Amino acid sequence: MTANIPLAFHVGPSDGPGREPDAFVPARVPGAVQLDWARAHDWAPWWQGDNFRQYRWMEEKWWTYRAVLPAMTLAPGERPVLVCDGIDYACVVRVDGAEVARHEGMFTPLEVNLGAFAGKECTLDIVILPAPRMPGAPDDRSQARGSAKPAVGYGWDWHPRLVPLGLWRAARIEMRGAGWLPKLQLGYRLAENLSAVTVKLEWEFPSAPPEGRLRYALQDTGGKTVATGEVGASAGRVVGQLTVAEPALWWCRGHGAQALYTARVELVLAGRVTATQTRRVGFRRARMVMNAGAWDRPRDFPKGRSDAPATLELNGRRIFLKGSSWVPPEVFPGLIDGARYAELLRLAGEVNMNFLTSWGGGIVNPDEFYEQCDALGLMVGTDFPLACNNYDAAGEAYLGVLEREARTIIGRVRAHPCNVMWKGGVELFNAWSGMTDQSLPLRLLGKLCYELDRDTPYLATTPLQGMMHGDYRFRDERGDDIFQIFQRVTSRLGTAHCEFGCPGPASVEVLREFIPPEELFPVRAGTAWETHHGLKAWDADPATWLSLSTLEHYFGPTGSLEELVGRGQWLQGEGMRSVFEETRRRWPECAWACNWCFNEPWPAAANNSLVTWPARPKPALALVAAACRPVLASARIPRFDWRPGETFECELWLLNDAPEAAAAGTVEARIVWGDDSRTLLRWEHAAVPAQTNLRGPTARCVLPDGAAESFELCLETPGFPERGSRYRLCCRLVVADGAAPPATRALNL
Amino acid sequence: MTANIPLAFHVGPSDGPGREPDAFVPARVPGAVQLDWARAHDWAPWWQGDNFRQYRWMEEKWWTYRAVLPAMTLAPGERPVLVCDGIDYACVVRVDGAEVARHEGMFTPLEVNLGAFAGKECTLDIVILPAPRMPGAPDDRSQARGSAKPAVGYGWDWHPRLVPLGLWRAARIEMRGAGWLPKLQLGYRLAENLSAVTVKLEWEFPSAPPEGRLRYALQDTGGKTVATGEVGASAGRVVGQLTVAEPALWWCRGHGAQALYTARVELVLAGRVTATQTRRVGFRRARMVMNAGAWDRPRDFPKGRSDAPATLELNGRRIFLKGSSWVPPEVFPGLIDGARYAELLRLAGEVNMNFLTSWGGGIVNPDEFYEQCDALGLMVGTDFPLACNNYDAAGEAYLGVLEREARTIIGRVRAHPCNVMWKGGVELFNAWSGMTDQSLPLRLLGKLCYELDRDTPYLATTPLQGMMHGDYRFRDERGDDIFQIFQRVTSRLGTAHCEFGCPGPASVEVLREFIPPEELFPVRAGTAWETHHGLKAWDADPATWLSLSTLEHYFGPTGSLEELVGRGQWLQGEGMRSVFEETRRRWPECAWACNWCFNEPWPAAANNSLVTWPARPKPALALVAAACRPVLASARIPRFDWRPGETFECELWLLNDAPEAAAAGTVEARIVWGDDSRTLLRWEHAAVPAQTNLRGPTARCVLPDGAAESFELCLETPGFPERGSRYRLCCRLVVADGAAPPATRALNL
Repeated sequence: MTANIPLAFHVGPSDGPGREPDAFVPARVPGAVQLDWARAHDWAPWWQGDNFRQYRWMEEKWWTYRAVLPAMTLAPGERPVLVCDGIDYACVVRVDGAEVARHEGMFTPLEVNLGAFAGKECTLDIVILPAPRMPGAPDDRSQARGSAKPAVGYGWDWHPRLVPLGLWRAARIEMRGAGWLPKLQLGYRLAENLSAVTVKLEWEFPSAPPEGRLRYALQDTGGKTVATGEVGASAGRVVGQLTVAEPALWWCRGHGAQALYTARVELVLAGRVTATQTRRVGFRRARMVMNAGAWDRPRDFPKGRSDAPATLELNGRRIFLKGSSWVPPEVFPGLIDGARYAELLRLAGEVNMNFLTSWGGGIVNPDEFYEQCDALGLMVGTDFPLACNNYDAAGEAYLGVLEREARTIIGRVRAHPCNVMWKGGVELFNAWSGMTDQSLPLRLLGKLCYELDRDTPYLATTPLQGMMHGDYRFRDERGDDIFQIFQRVTSRLGTAHCEFGCPGPASVEVLREFIPPEELFPVRAGTAWETHHGLKAWDADPATWLSLSTLEHYFGPTGSLEELVGRGQWLQGEGMRSVFEETRRRWPECAWACNWCFNEPWPAAANNSLVTWPARPKPALALVAAACRPVLASARIPRFDWRPGETFECELWLLNDAPEAAAAGTVEARIVWGDDSRTLLRWEHAAVPAQTNLRGPTARCVLPDGAAESFELCLETPGFPERGSRYRLCCRLVVADGAAPPATRALNL
Repeated sequence: MTANIPLAFHVGPSDGPGREPDAFVPARVPGAVQLDWARAHDWAPWWQGDNFRQYRWMEEKWWTYRAVLPAMTLAPGERPVLVCDGIDYACVVRVDGAEVARHEGMFTPLEVNLGAFAGKECTLDIVILPAPRMPGAPDDRSQARGSAKPAVGYGWDWHPRLVPLGLWRAARIEMRGAGWLPKLQLGYRLAENLSAVTVKLEWEFPSAPPEGRLRYALQDTGGKTVATGEVGASAGRVVGQLTVAEPALWWCRGHGAQALYTARVELVLAGRVTATQTRRVGFRRARMVMNAGAWDRPRDFPKGRSDAPATLELNGRRIFLKGSSWVPPEVFPGLIDGARYAELLRLAGEVNMNFLTSWGGGIVNPDEFYEQCDALGLMVGTDFPLACNNYDAAGEAYLGVLEREARTIIGRVRAHPCNVMWKGGVELFNAWSGMTDQSLPLRLLGKLCYELDRDTPYLATTPLQGMMHGDYRFRDERGDDIFQIFQRVTSRLGTAHCEFGCPGPASVEVLREFIPPEELFPVRAGTAWETHHGLKAWDADPATWLSLSTLEHYFGPTGSLEELVGRGQWLQGEGMRSVFEETRRRWPECAWACNWCFNEPWPAAANNSLVTWPARPKPALALVAAACRPVLASARIPRFDWRPGETFECELWLLNDAPEAAAAGTVEARIVWGDDSRTLLRWEHAAVPAQTNLRGPTARCVLPDGAAESFELCLETPGFPERGSRYRLCCRLVVADGAAPPATRALNL
């Protein structure tokens, strides 16, 4: 068998499908046409200032990737197959000007047999079509509602308008002969009592029968072979099967080991191994089950349904989901490599999360992502690429593309034990999207998940009845702060908080990287603060995401960039932490806390993200890490801001979501107010059973006089320093005459 | 081709699958083993007294249907096929003692090629298995949760425990040769703008290729051929297609004509027509769309989803669904014939209904039902046979049976334009069932509906978010009456009232038919009043369904059977009517009013049904007919009972759900109180646009003194007598000293 043939591409734009590009530039594959063009023309970084606007024209062009296809000498039965692992988003393939294939969809590889052109050198053109746009849609994300292209590139309240195009995954010529082994598709089914697993291995052989044997084996974590099998290879679908008794189960982090098995396959032709495959797989049972108390509602007649099940049960154990929404770590998906995944996912694990939602506005991540989540014990809920849009009018062609893409995605992801949930998409059953239970794309996705991976839960979308999204602000338009917003949630309204946010600015050194010095301070509209989503980002609230009006409400005017960033990051940290802790306190009535969002694809001036692009933690990340510790002393604090002389109070809790009991201990609550420090109480608590929270006493004290911008509540836990918590709260500045604090001033941008 | 061979069966019980019955009795097919046995033994009617208890042993037996299979002379290529159109519920087929087939499921016909036994006379045994029972389930409907057997026979709050078994549809030997034509399956798809329809005709030919031609044509209502086609017949799946431009659309009654086309098919072999088929079909587009205002909710963060769409849109027009839940009209489905369907469905049409829910606790009705609904313009929502149970633990075998049954059902029903909605089952997402969005049976049904009839809406169940069930009482445990219960519903809580009830007793002459004379009056527990569901029927309220405590609350002690029945029927009529009218007033925020239930399968002593078994209207039916008139004057009355000297008030409305405007007119409100009669006001209203309600003035008056059991509110509509309404309300008896009326006395049974 001949070796694969790499392809060296140049790429160039033109104004029509049949037009020759005026110019070509060298192309990097994987990559994006925009990156190639910018590199060739020495453009300044696209993420600085408003440089991204320069790229706008590119999404309207046809981009021809051109490579020389060398003359090839084929062994008998050999086929030269063009393989593109990822096309963003649609293309026509031509050889010496003749069309040989068309393709649409980012996630299904394109494969084209070029055997007819093997004899002589040819020109291979992969012509990328302009970014899809729904006819008549306004110039925003709704342009994505006619296609399976991830919508985020069309612009979001934290993402610039920049629609990537090109070969975002590798491309090559594969020489395939009789000894070639098609991609292995794995699936498995666990016995009801988890005592055995049946693994199914599938290959789709092309029409020419290889007449060989497929030998396969499964090795456990220690490399020991636990099952073997063999099946004859023939044209069409070939299925092998293995059964393993008492398999080691895969657990999410915090609940057990991440047992991973390895499937090894050999294709044997005439006694010779012609191809091998290795694939990791893990076994777990994931179910969505009803929350505690959920069947008791609704009570009265006329009566609706009970809330949707919102508790993840893994291998029979109910797990509190602590996590975050994963968004694309780059605007250009071709730039994301295994190292970037590693860096970010390691952070997620370190901050005690056990779950990530792979957000449907971005790409469905490649295998590297799922492999690392498997290894780290990070559970994943995977959205299909439908987000905040109505895809109902997209029609038959769209349903065809969606079906092909979904089949590829499910077939690829289902053997990764980390993927515990499929979701049709995000926020589809709300006004701004306008889809419903009757929407054909969602009914189609439900059907495909049932057919291909029915033992993994499928949710049409979130939010659902009981499963909430929002709020995304430290302080809402009623004047309630984030502590109050989440404490007013009744359990009827919150079996899960699948998305909540609290924004904060990037750090000063990051801001300096992309905001021109003259725009840095004071903050003004029409600057990089605005294009980078510090101002007027979210339609629902013009103060997003920098929250200047909120900062002014609590602290009055800001004197410097450093002060602005310090206060903003403080609010984000205490805000995010408060929701994680409040939601955990409501376990088992509430079973899921996932903040919006973990990371970001470019440097936002302010954002709900916990990690600044590319992978720099914001201060809030540490407080989220604290809130997500398996065992911690936690205070239920009624609100963020307090005044001298007021009676401060908070309820003490010992939170434990670990699968083992937390030893008995002591919690000492102390207030630190300027130079003053007072112990409020000492609470000696008994051991706290596994996955149980203990509600303790309410501490109270009259706050001392004397203004300070902040005071601290410290929960000390002698003997268990890892359980201690420290909250920094606001001491509200009071105007000179002791009257009411200043009213919120509307931001006048 | 030889003629079909009828089969004459005897039937007898035995204690095990291989045991010979001790005795046989003549069998009627279609029928039930219980009916055959009772007939042979001259039992008194099963529906009198508690005679049904006599049948209990039968559900635990194996019942052998035995017939002589004569020696058959087969033409070349001919097969003698045993065809059973309906097996209730599972069977083994044996010929001369040798097992030749097994079958499970009521709705998929059983077909067995008996060619191997043609040469000589044989004995054909169809052994019906005992009624399926989920192991370990208590002795109630939960025994049905392991099978696709309709659950109602296991006992319900209006149905005796009597589980029918046997051949409930016809059985025969069909002689099938090359000229035989398999069952036609029809489907169609309307263009988005409704300007054209494509009809797909499908046949599944057995392996022997007939090598003929299939000619088919479509005729319109007038018999004119509007399209023809032809396709070669060959082994396997054969598909023909027709396209018709500007098809006449099928409308529900009240909105247009019931356009029905006829598909005619001929199989032509060697120039000779060997078989023909005729099938009616109609074309309509049915969608579930969002209710007015539903996208505005939820408002606050944290935010769940918007309500599920609950408005039926037919051919682009939103329609208010006025209807009722259809339950089996007989305990034994083999007794239901076309005439019974005709009698009951005619009634439903006459009382201005446009919709029936075919309830999932009973059978999925045969074609006769759907044909008549097509012709009458009665829309149908069809439940699959899952009801108030948790089918999740039923396992793989159950999923296999459910899939086969659902494929049969959908394939058969989808060409009937009347069927505008599929529903996985009834009340599955509530505590008493315990299924969820993740339940595999419902995900499977969703998948199958998408595959086979994706243009018809699929609801997993009702109630859903916004779509309510209940209440089922005139007066609830808080003391609110049905007027108040439904007026306290906010639109958030009621986009649809898919099921609501109000019970009333059967008429005196009906009661005398099945309650022994000595038990008739006074009503006592432990009598036929109780076995026929007058007392302690519904777990949630021991006063059901006779509501003695409610009657006593309003009227004090009852002196006679006639008085009891009169008062009970009065409450049922005014109660049912009030919900239909209140729900209609909330259009377009609310779009669906369906009472529980239309009919009943045996004579209940008291029940929510509007029609007593077999087809005798209760007085409430006339008031429902009044409430469902397209145009009517309606009063929003705050409650049912009033006292002399109180200020009575009611809001006047003109309701119009017709597709055309209602002419301007006058509504005169008048109170009739004993001999007293007063006009309250005259409201001159303008024309009311199509499908619009007009809210008029509030009428008020101080009620006269002088006790009477009732008074009337009359809305007279000069010039439009068909719009007038007359409400009979309660004048609450006041104790002698003018103090508070007597408190509700708990019923002490």
